[in-house]
Amino acid sequence: MVKALVFDVFGTVVDWRGSITREVRTLAEANGFKVNAAKFANLWRAGYAPAMDRVRNKDLPWMNIDALHRLILDDLLNQFSLSLTEEDTDHLNRAWHRLKPWPDSVRGLRKLKQQFTISTLSNGNFSLLNNMAKNAGLPWDCIISAELFGHYKPDPETYLGAANLLGLTPSEVMLCAAHKDDLIAAKNCGLRTAFIKRPREFSPSVKIDLSSDERFDYNAESILDLASQLT
Amino acid sequence: MVKALVFDVFGTVVDWRGSITREVRTLAEANGFKVNAAKFANLWRAGYAPAMDRVRNKDLPWMNIDALHRLILDDLLNQFSLSLTEEDTDHLNRAWHRLKPWPDSVRGLRKLKQQFTISTLSNGNFSLLNNMAKNAGLPWDCIISAELFGHYKPDPETYLGAANLLGLTPSEVMLCAAHKDDLIAAKNCGLRTAFIKRPREFSPSVKIDLSSDERFDYNAESILDLASQLT
Repeated sequence: MVKALVFDVFGTVVDWRGSITREVRTLAEANGFKVNAAKFANLWRAGYAPAMDRVRNKDLPWMNIDALHRLILDDLLNQFSLSLTEEDTDHLNRAWHRLKPWPDSVRGLRKLKQQFTISTLSNGNFSLLNNMAKNAGLPWDCIISAELFGHYKPDPETYLGAANLLGLTPSEVMLCAAHKDDLIAAKNCGLRTAFIKRPREFSPSVKIDLSSDERFDYNAESILDLASQLT
Repeated sequence: MVKALVFDVFGTVVDWRGSITREVRTLAEANGFKVNAAKFANLWRAGYAPAMDRVRNKDLPWMNIDALHRLILDDLLNQFSLSLTEEDTDHLNRAWHRLKPWPDSVRGLRKLKQQFTISTLSNGNFSLLNNMAKNAGLPWDCIISAELFGHYKPDPETYLGAANLLGLTPSEVMLCAAHKDDLIAAKNCGLRTAFIKRPREFSPSVKIDLSSDERFDYNAESILDLASQLT
């Protein structure tokens, strides 16, 4: 019945926290300044949902994630009193194009690809997702981005737009995500849902709800585990 | 300098004439009626450009290629006095999702994928292109369809839209196509161009211009030949 699996990406497929922390640390070492790289990464990510909400609420015009990441980054560099060249700032902003997958992601996606169409359904922009896939070897059949709809998740236009592009009914599409709010929004649009637990997405100090949840069609410990359950 | 290769699909990557002729013949045999399958295929394809032009000229509202193919098909079935069930008609309409690649296409694309982003840039709808890729093993990094822009080639919105989605300047993108008019339109938008010769796209009775052309950056005998020239 399910023909396509569409994946949230940041946190679900790739480890933004580890990747961004490493990139900030590397850049700091190369430039001879000190910075709490883990804190910097967490704050950068923390600015993301509010920035998208400003777009969703029409307080900002449509801007893609590269542009929103840059807005937040410029603020953070100020806040941390860091001065970077434009070239370094742009390179750092594109660290999101170079995020590393969780250890099970590539193997799990390869297995699922044999039986399903597998696609991104991410708020990341199209080029970010394409560059990330090339860098990380993520074997997507196609790239679907919020950018294609001019709406960010959890707006219904994204979930319904993905099903429409794939030529499928919402119930033939399953969203796979590490975030329950994303899954609930997809379920409300008629999509099937798979919760992928990612206990290390956030710092250990952050409480996150990792409990299996009967509202979802599947609850999985990883993408590889989901592949075992589905194939 | 060129970072992404975007491909016209019908005729350039896949053999619509052979594939559609075979599907029509198979369906006729199964239903016990006689039809000139090659003629049927040629007429179906011949209806395609005028139908898109009606959309481009706002004589029809936006309709994707599945819908335009169906309009043309319903006319043709009438014209050939063929009566099919809705199920068979829909199956035949989706023959365009099952087109077979030219013998060099998959190997050529695999080789090019190692060095470039490779994408469709086709008037075919997104789900058609995705299903075709799954059926035929076309290893695209991503699917870009005219449907994403609400404009058909050769409208500039398609070529510029593809570059924009990929986060590239037009000159970092090369259109690879078997049709000179498509290439000229892309060149006028600032894209690089590669002409792929496909002498068997049309019936032998149709005269087509297969000459190498210095207006294009590359002239190739096949996708595999283009890969040899580029890598």
